[in-house]
Amino acid sequence: MSTGFFGDIAKVKYEGPDSTNPLAFRHYNPDEIVAGKRMEDHLRFAVAYWHSFAWEGSDPFGGRTFDRPWFGDDMQKAKLKADVAFEMFSLLGAPYYCFHDADARPEGKTFAESTKNLNEIVDYLQKKQEETGVKLLWGTANLFSNRRFMSGASTNPDPDVFAYSAATIKTCMDATMKLGGENYVLWGGREGYETLLNTDLSREFDQMARMLHMVVEYKYKIGFKGTILVEPKPQEPTKHQYDYDVATVYGFLKKYGLENEVKMNIEQGHAILAGHTFEHELALANTLGIFGSIDMNRNDYQSGWDTDQFPNNVPEMALAYYQVLQAGGFTTGGTNFDSKLRRQSLDPEDLLIGHIGGMDCCARGLKAAAKMVEDGALSKPLAERYAKWDQPEAQKMLRGEMKLEEIAAKVERENINPEPKSGRQEYLENVVNRYV
Amino acid sequence: MSTGFFGDIAKVKYEGPDSTNPLAFRHYNPDEIVAGKRMEDHLRFAVAYWHSFAWEGSDPFGGRTFDRPWFGDDMQKAKLKADVAFEMFSLLGAPYYCFHDADARPEGKTFAESTKNLNEIVDYLQKKQEETGVKLLWGTANLFSNRRFMSGASTNPDPDVFAYSAATIKTCMDATMKLGGENYVLWGGREGYETLLNTDLSREFDQMARMLHMVVEYKYKIGFKGTILVEPKPQEPTKHQYDYDVATVYGFLKKYGLENEVKMNIEQGHAILAGHTFEHELALANTLGIFGSIDMNRNDYQSGWDTDQFPNNVPEMALAYYQVLQAGGFTTGGTNFDSKLRRQSLDPEDLLIGHIGGMDCCARGLKAAAKMVEDGALSKPLAERYAKWDQPEAQKMLRGEMKLEEIAAKVERENINPEPKSGRQEYLENVVNRYV
Amino acid sequence: MSTGFFGDIAKVKYEGPDSTNPLAFRHYNPDEIVAGKRMEDHLRFAVAYWHSFAWEGSDPFGGRTFDRPWFGDDMQKAKLKADVAFEMFSLLGAPYYCFHDADARPEGKTFAESTKNLNEIVDYLQKKQEETGVKLLWGTANLFSNRRFMSGASTNPDPDVFAYSAATIKTCMDATMKLGGENYVLWGGREGYETLLNTDLSREFDQMARMLHMVVEYKYKIGFKGTILVEPKPQEPTKHQYDYDVATVYGFLKKYGLENEVKMNIEQGHAILAGHTFEHELALANTLGIFGSIDMNRNDYQSGWDTDQFPNNVPEMALAYYQVLQAGGFTTGGTNFDSKLRRQSLDPEDLLIGHIGGMDCCARGLKAAAKMVEDGALSKPLAERYAKWDQPEAQKMLRGEMKLEEIAAKVERENINPEPKSGRQEYLENVVNRYV
Amino acid sequence: MSTGFFGDIAKVKYEGPDSTNPLAFRHYNPDEIVAGKRMEDHLRFAVAYWHSFAWEGSDPFGGRTFDRPWFGDDMQKAKLKADVAFEMFSLLGAPYYCFHDADARPEGKTFAESTKNLNEIVDYLQKKQEETGVKLLWGTANLFSNRRFMSGASTNPDPDVFAYSAATIKTCMDATMKLGGENYVLWGGREGYETLLNTDLSREFDQMARMLHMVVEYKYKIGFKGTILVEPKPQEPTKHQYDYDVATVYGFLKKYGLENEVKMNIEQGHAILAGHTFEHELALANTLGIFGSIDMNRNDYQSGWDTDQFPNNVPEMALAYYQVLQAGGFTTGGTNFDSKLRRQSLDPEDLLIGHIGGMDCCARGLKAAAKMVEDGALSKPLAERYAKWDQPEAQKMLRGEMKLEEIAAKVERENINPEPKSGRQEYLENVVNRYV
Repeated sequence: MSTGFFGDIAKVKYEGPDSTNPLAFRHYNPDEIVAGKRMEDHLRFAVAYWHSFAWEGSDPFGGRTFDRPWFGDDMQKAKLKADVAFEMFSLLGAPYYCFHDADARPEGKTFAESTKNLNEIVDYLQKKQEETGVKLLWGTANLFSNRRFMSGASTNPDPDVFAYSAATIKTCMDATMKLGGENYVLWGGREGYETLLNTDLSREFDQMARMLHMVVEYKYKIGFKGTILVEPKPQEPTKHQYDYDVATVYGFLKKYGLENEVKMNIEQGHAILAGHTFEHELALANTLGIFGSIDMNRNDYQSGWDTDQFPNNVPEMALAYYQVLQAGGFTTGGTNFDSKLRRQSLDPEDLLIGHIGGMDCCARGLKAAAKMVEDGALSKPLAERYAKWDQPEAQKMLRGEMKLEEIAAKVERENINPEPKSGRQEYLENVVNRYV
Repeated sequence: MSTGFFGDIAKVKYEGPDSTNPLAFRHYNPDEIVAGKRMEDHLRFAVAYWHSFAWEGSDPFGGRTFDRPWFGDDMQKAKLKADVAFEMFSLLGAPYYCFHDADARPEGKTFAESTKNLNEIVDYLQKKQEETGVKLLWGTANLFSNRRFMSGASTNPDPDVFAYSAATIKTCMDATMKLGGENYVLWGGREGYETLLNTDLSREFDQMARMLHMVVEYKYKIGFKGTILVEPKPQEPTKHQYDYDVATVYGFLKKYGLENEVKMNIEQGHAILAGHTFEHELALANTLGIFGSIDMNRNDYQSGWDTDQFPNNVPEMALAYYQVLQAGGFTTGGTNFDSKLRRQSLDPEDLLIGHIGGMDCCARGLKAAAKMVEDGALSKPLAERYAKWDQPEAQKMLRGEMKLEEIAAKVERENINPEPKSGRQEYLENVVNRYV
Repeated sequence: MSTGFFGDIAKVKYEGPDSTNPLAFRHYNPDEIVAGKRMEDHLRFAVAYWHSFAWEGSDPFGGRTFDRPWFGDDMQKAKLKADVAFEMFSLLGAPYYCFHDADARPEGKTFAESTKNLNEIVDYLQKKQEETGVKLLWGTANLFSNRRFMSGASTNPDPDVFAYSAATIKTCMDATMKLGGENYVLWGGREGYETLLNTDLSREFDQMARMLHMVVEYKYKIGFKGTILVEPKPQEPTKHQYDYDVATVYGFLKKYGLENEVKMNIEQGHAILAGHTFEHELALANTLGIFGSIDMNRNDYQSGWDTDQFPNNVPEMALAYYQVLQAGGFTTGGTNFDSKLRRQSLDPEDLLIGHIGGMDCCARGLKAAAKMVEDGALSKPLAERYAKWDQPEAQKMLRGEMKLEEIAAKVERENINPEPKSGRQEYLENVVNRYV
Repeated sequence: MSTGFFGDIAKVKYEGPDSTNPLAFRHYNPDEIVAGKRMEDHLRFAVAYWHSFAWEGSDPFGGRTFDRPWFGDDMQKAKLKADVAFEMFSLLGAPYYCFHDADARPEGKTFAESTKNLNEIVDYLQKKQEETGVKLLWGTANLFSNRRFMSGASTNPDPDVFAYSAATIKTCMDATMKLGGENYVLWGGREGYETLLNTDLSREFDQMARMLHMVVEYKYKIGFKGTILVEPKPQEPTKHQYDYDVATVYGFLKKYGLENEVKMNIEQGHAILAGHTFEHELALANTLGIFGSIDMNRNDYQSGWDTDQFPNNVPEMALAYYQVLQAGGFTTGGTNFDSKLRRQSLDPEDLLIGHIGGMDCCARGLKAAAKMVEDGALSKPLAERYAKWDQPEAQKMLRGEMKLEEIAAKVERENINPEPKSGRQEYLENVVNRYV
């Protein structure tokens, strides 16, 4: 039974590239086979509960712009919210969603009450999942909005906040497990600092590592088969967030022996805020063996804060999915739209249109990437460029079978004076443009 | 015997804060005792050979502006350059200098000839060191200016360039050893990429790690007692440099088992380009156990490229030396001015004035920092803020003696609901302003 | 009668540089004469009502952190808020405050009710002003928080919003007039765009100009003697704000013939967000003849959003007040702290401490600047640098008495080939460091 | 007669979208009619002499990478350079080129000798133009590379440099006139400052304005029919460049009464460095009536310096040419590739490939833009959004026929309380994605 929120809008269908129907897919065709797999199974789209259903349209200079019948703070509203959410997932044909505890349940007066509320709504979500076939890509705990977390969750100078955070995570992992979630995500929005003047980095790192270890231990204890994911972001709301970017998180995981237990949930917008391209973060995670999942929402290139916009640049998506394919595609991960409407986009149909545009854009990117892989468009020139390294003498150097002084002697003896070769960047950029 | 370059300028003396003599120190007083140690021994100032003597004043839009009698490419000019350089070190009373091979010797037509040139100039520098008492803080190899390195040195797709780089490093480590250098530095200016389209990150990381391992092995082989330092920088000249920042380098060192062999040479300007404060990079290196040395030159906050300016903001210096003191002060490291004059600062005396200003600014920063340490101005409030973590229950959590589910049970049982406490940032900022 | 909010904290006094009392001034001494004028009369400090009393500590990732007895939405709370605000102004000895309508009065259900509420609270503020002697530096209208302004106020595509905005401004100008405000400010937080795709720049510019013309006309109509000020900001909340920076606003004023009627309220934080130094914006406004007033709150250099922090870097303040003095000092303008506490700074005393630190920092900056002016420390070298332009031949060129072809002939004839002279930047930076 | 530089590469032809020939156009088809005009006549492509023929591949950390037979400093090399340049223009079928004096002629020992050299090479270029049919889009003077301009050209503190600059401009305007150039460009690369400490903004603005007036006067004197264009850039090499962005230059032109004489040459890369999108700068110039021409080279979004890369993102090009079409298309302006190869792109064919990719990318953008215009894809929703402003009551407000107080009375009387409407940003972004 429909809530009526989306009026008479019917399930969004694939109508092909020539369609001008704003409520149809032009490129996302779930059953179409791309590189030997259904598009749906490649892309594994998920909708973020929070931006589409919990966020009210506020920004630092203005309050709520959206008028939603489910805004409020009781269980009835929470269920209405779930009804509309699953209605939207179904209209879009999105196979997955993601949520924080705080998106879905009213906050209780005590921890116990919050947990009770969460459990009640989890039962409800479970029923919705069964009715619709929509699955949970990942669950997570909101450890940043309530004022108790203002100075950090696991990295709080007050161990009671650490305890409260641990307890909250437990309930969220339980919820994720119950709902068949395929991953559990940690985004440490307050794990960082506003000023070093009041911050003890060594203590806070140890605290954060302890929490992550407990999460991993609990995962095994309850038999959760999903992946533990950390989502890097450089800053905002903090001045500095400890999970700055993929490279930073990797160093942290290595320091605390967690690099085989935790993978990355990488967001395009966060990559940009950290001064990287999205494909850099993806390629790096793949190289380091910690690629997990993606949050597919861009940042405005000229804005210095998290804008969480739907992706709309196809060439960028092609390069992103090229890296995903290089990593072997998603296993437990997927493509989560951690995207919000612009706060001026008030209409129910805007919610659908934003997601449709993003899904189409990703589909185009995936198809282009798959074709590049198939053609060896980039991989062949790459292999050629490094070919000399595959020769025995070079391998000997690389394997450590020559000492610095031996190499030096050889260079002098053989008068080695290498002539540089073209890097062919423009050629390769043009090659990519054949596919997008 | 003077070269006459600096005219009749005499050795720069400490004249105290009221002096208006532009060629006197107002704050740097080498023999003054600060926190139990001579200022000179705290600060360990070094002058960078390259910016002051090899750089010609060019920028991407214009060529040479400086008129120096030693510009040219033969051994005689190289020796004149050394004469003027040591004259300046002596006028300033700078105890140390730093150099790349390419700063000091003419490039040869072959590797052998370059090495021969280097050795000849190293003998000359050794004599100058003996004459003046000036010492070598660190040596390094320029593996970025010559076109052979355009696609990387150790990370080049051509193993011959790797070999050439290795051979060059060997000669520079030999030179550093011979000159009694206290550290050997690697800055991987071309170890990075312009585009991922032609780059194999996995190969390049392995190549870079191999080189670093060889450097460490060679250090032990020749009995070099100094520290191997890596200098992070996020980008420029590359789009992305692998040694992005302290956190990134740490992850790399951990990945390849080098974290106990290599420390950081941290530059204020590079910190800023990477989106960090300088004190962040220092505090992080200290926390990770890899603090080594500093390049004390700032970046313009509004310019997106390396501006390498002399430090001139005392409050910033106070926070920087506070972190240096937190790390226990320098051991083999020091304060290197990797600073260049603005290209419009044409006069010989500008070279001195730039360094004098920088040295005074650092001296003021050090004195303020030492006083803050002495007073416990920041450390006392810090200890109070985290005091609850020192209690047994909290330590139990931190040591892993409670599981997630046990903590959760306790939170629920005891109805823990922590009340946040003021972070007192403004108070602490005002405290710092009492000292600067 | 005290509200008790600040407990037993007494009026903040000047205790001199050696004081360690966090609730005393160490440098701001209102009656001290600097450059022939009382410090209070130079600095003309104002407290911003909104940040200190209306903002609840929220950020994009978290809600209210402050617990204030006046939070709420009725007239009684509004009066309590005013009581505490004036208590704080008095404790600080701040001679001025600034406010938006929405800071001070509850929003009504209709425009008429909002106006009624405003008028009631204005009467109350007037009484508080009389009781305390605190004056109004400027009033302004909040045309950005309510959802009706989401697509702009004067630049809204809906003329009804333009009308509503005009009406609101009228009430705020009336209020400012009644309260003896010395300026009226316009900050166009929503006058800009999120995307050019739905924006007609030509229409929106014309709308914005019309509103500004009406403001000027109304000023004369009611006999308001204060200055109309526009406050530039490049972006946030919008992607692009039309009043981007001083240069942009100047062009706009010139286009619409308003350059003699409107001056600038320049904020350090906004300057930084626009990619400028604060002193650049001040110097430019002075050069263009539109300098008015300042918002003295800094932005974090590494954060890409408005952080509105209290100033704490004395060298920066010295350069800022140097420009203010170059402009002849403030006339109707002043130093408004558009600064907010960090959201973790929960305690009532933090409110005082933040302002005390800012006021001390400005006082130190002013004193340093005044001394530089007195000594001609910067102005003498500046005059020398351009001295050749004062000669008759140069003046002839500048006045247009030589044509391009005549100058060219002269250059060729006289074989002019100018030799560059040192710009002495490091020298001048060191000079400044003598004063701070 | 071919120089042989490009080997046996033949004239680049249009082969259609399916071609995989890297030396063919896939989208640029000069004679194809788009929106009623030949593509060549729409796009008016020009090649920049400097990047492709004068730049040697150096960057701030490394020297020459390219090996070109024409590098050198005598007239014979200069003519060889011209031969190769025109060969490339012809191979590409580029109808235009652009140049600075210093790109094309050897610097003389005196001004007279430089002029003589320029005149000789201009004669040679004229012959090449006649032979090939290639035309000059614009000429310009290099007033930034030589050390005499280190402190500015027209804004130099030394009036002799002003004079030298004026004389140089005269010779370049003469050259441009002789070669039939359609515009004359001024890029003030050194017109700005490194530090305000040694800068007198008022003097420098007046000097810059005088120069610009002389340029305009001389244009009329010699009967030059082209457009005078100023090219904005925010910084680099300077810390601050006076021609910061379109808005800033507009204000300057208005201040000095030049707004009807001078138009803008807008570069994508400079827009990005200034914190704007390219389309913003184009739309703004159109709104202000000063749109002239474009430099079609992008900046890397993550690099803080001028990277001058060939455009390769089609959606960006579509938005750019949409604005060009909104401005009525080019008149004297055109699409200049102020683009340089990456310094690792060593091969002659890279020069062609870079331009081919850029031309194809622009062609795709133009076609998409033209189709959007034809369909009213963006213009219809735009007109609807502002439709209420076309009604009489709204026009009355806009024309100034209602005073602030009258509007306020009406709002109160009619209880106006506008309900916001969706801005439909995601919808419009999806619409654009139908075309690219």
